Amino acid sequence: MSTRPRNDTFLRALLRQPVDHTPVWVMRQAGRYLPEYNQTRARAGGFMDLCRSPALATEVTLQPLGRFRLDAAILFSDILTIPDAMGLGLYFAEGEGPRFERPLREEWEIRDLQAPDPQEHLGYVLEAVSEIRRALAGEVPLIGFSGSPFTLACYMIDGAGGGNFERTRAMLYSRPDLLHRVLQVNCEAVTRYLNAQIQAGAQAVMVFDTWGGLLSGPAFREFSLAYLEQVLAGLIRVQDGEVVPRVVFTKGGAQWLEGLASIGADALGLDWTCDLGLARGRVGQQVALQGNLDPAVLLSNPEEVKRQVARVLADFGHGTGHVFNLGHGVSQHTPPENVAALVEAVLELSPAYHRPLAD
Amino acid sequence: MSTRPRNDTFLRALLRQPVDHTPVWVMRQAGRYLPEYNQTRARAGGFMDLCRSPALATEVTLQPLGRFRLDAAILFSDILTIPDAMGLGLYFAEGEGPRFERPLREEWEIRDLQAPDPQEHLGYVLEAVSEIRRALAGEVPLIGFSGSPFTLACYMIDGAGGGNFERTRAMLYSRPDLLHRVLQVNCEAVTRYLNAQIQAGAQAVMVFDTWGGLLSGPAFREFSLAYLEQVLAGLIRVQDGEVVPRVVFTKGGAQWLEGLASIGADALGLDWTCDLGLARGRVGQQVALQGNLDPAVLLSNPEEVKRQVARVLADFGHGTGHVFNLGHGVSQHTPPENVAALVEAVLELSPAYHRPLAD
Repeated sequence: MSTRPRNDTFLRALLRQPVDHTPVWVMRQAGRYLPEYNQTRARAGGFMDLCRSPALATEVTLQPLGRFRLDAAILFSDILTIPDAMGLGLYFAEGEGPRFERPLREEWEIRDLQAPDPQEHLGYVLEAVSEIRRALAGEVPLIGFSGSPFTLACYMIDGAGGGNFERTRAMLYSRPDLLHRVLQVNCEAVTRYLNAQIQAGAQAVMVFDTWGGLLSGPAFREFSLAYLEQVLAGLIRVQDGEVVPRVVFTKGGAQWLEGLASIGADALGLDWTCDLGLARGRVGQQVALQGNLDPAVLLSNPEEVKRQVARVLADFGHGTGHVFNLGHGVSQHTPPENVAALVEAVLELSPAYHRPLAD
Repeated sequence: MSTRPRNDTFLRALLRQPVDHTPVWVMRQAGRYLPEYNQTRARAGGFMDLCRSPALATEVTLQPLGRFRLDAAILFSDILTIPDAMGLGLYFAEGEGPRFERPLREEWEIRDLQAPDPQEHLGYVLEAVSEIRRALAGEVPLIGFSGSPFTLACYMIDGAGGGNFERTRAMLYSRPDLLHRVLQVNCEAVTRYLNAQIQAGAQAVMVFDTWGGLLSGPAFREFSLAYLEQVLAGLIRVQDGEVVPRVVFTKGGAQWLEGLASIGADALGLDWTCDLGLARGRVGQQVALQGNLDPAVLLSNPEEVKRQVARVLADFGHGTGHVFNLGHGVSQHTPPENVAALVEAVLELSPAYHRPLAD
């Protein structure tokens, strides 16, 4: 396993070290907006068949890098592999989001819940990480990821999205002890899973707290933030002589940036509703920021994309500590040429923000 | 039309005048969690049949007041009556949210769009307002309401919810001129509609900006806030010798409270993610605040409801300027006894916050 990738701009920006341009990648960059992805997926069968085949997961992970000058690759997988490995039966109904066949309904199911051994139950993900890392051949870094303990709990308890996770939020008030038990197991599972990804070759990790923004402030601190902090405290910090930076993304978390900046993350992901310049003023001395173009911009045209990229770069301003990204995953209806325009605009416009300032 | 209701606590709190307890009402207080509502609805046929019958709309509006000691009634209607009156064909598929038969798809449809005359096209709503006001017999004030120009546009352009209103947000970047045209028509329609409700008997009005929180900061200011301000500027301020207070509720708008507090609203509605004490510190000198208990609390038990009500009251603190409410509509799965516990807790615990402070 070699050390630094030839292009280490992404890792440097996460650690707020000087860079010559703002690094860029796109959440869900390997996905349905790419015709080559749809071809591979059709060959695989379903979405989870794609995730479970290290060869096909490697193929789709690399597809966007073949088209666009991106500064990072991200493991192709799903945020719900952990509860699937716990035996809850993840599946995807046509045209809908993820669902579990056996959501947690009974108290004994929660008492019996165990953190899965990643080597034993999630080997397909670790093999994909190794294979992608080899295929990248030291060019750009590979990002590993997981859902957050709370976000996993939402799906495990409600069984599916779409209803604002009312069962999970009800349990939070009626049986907080049971929710804490689920979160404690998830916390251990996420920590072991991310560490196994790091050992298999992931050079940075990202935790997706997709549903933390559904909580009140006090509930967020108790049921999501505390477990995020515990996960980060348990992660391998240095692997093969290199620091492994951590990114935490709480969608809808703009109100809680100060809390999020104090739990040991190197960078925070920001959704598009959040003012990047204000966020930098609040927490930019503690963490790097990743984001946050509105994904809907990519449904317009290359000229508008360039204009909005310029706005986001200006919003962050001069200096390192910014990783350019969308504020949420790319829409399946995105024309690939608009992603090309995004990447080109970041490469063209961002170097000016990294030159020494004139006196 | 008489003037002040005998219980004017709600109106006084909105205007930040002294009160002896914190007034309380519940968003969607007339709804599916009440068995008597379901009976009336079954008798009516569908949801829109209920809205279109002034007698039945009056019946269901009064139902929660028969059970709970609430400080306000709110017109029973839907936020999408305006686009329905524009000819878009509102309907409710079983188990789903609202949909339009004829969403705006073509440029000419947007060019042809006209603000409906409320007397001519929304007479059923105005009749309901008059009838409810008579039935309330001067006891508590009646709240009229409308969707915001942007929130109406979301449904008019996308045709339904569930997809984060991707078409609307795409239009915002690709054809802002067309979106502005829709918003301008909606702005005129909402202003006329709310004024007609005020003239028919509504003693306060609330604008639901349910989807403004989907926007980036700059887009929120340009495409939602600016039109909210225009609506408020056009509203009747004094009717029958009484000031008609206005409440604006932007779900997910906690980042933009300062902007929302500066457009002429008397009060801001807050969702449950927002810290009420912090919000008061930011804008409490300009506006009253309405909210913001997590609706999921009502899925627990009366003891927990009381504990969480106490927390919200303490969070706002001493003095007037607070209307107790949920941070979003009450869930259909709520046991009515938990709503009773909420109202009782507010009545029991809030007077302490309105007594003169000891020296």
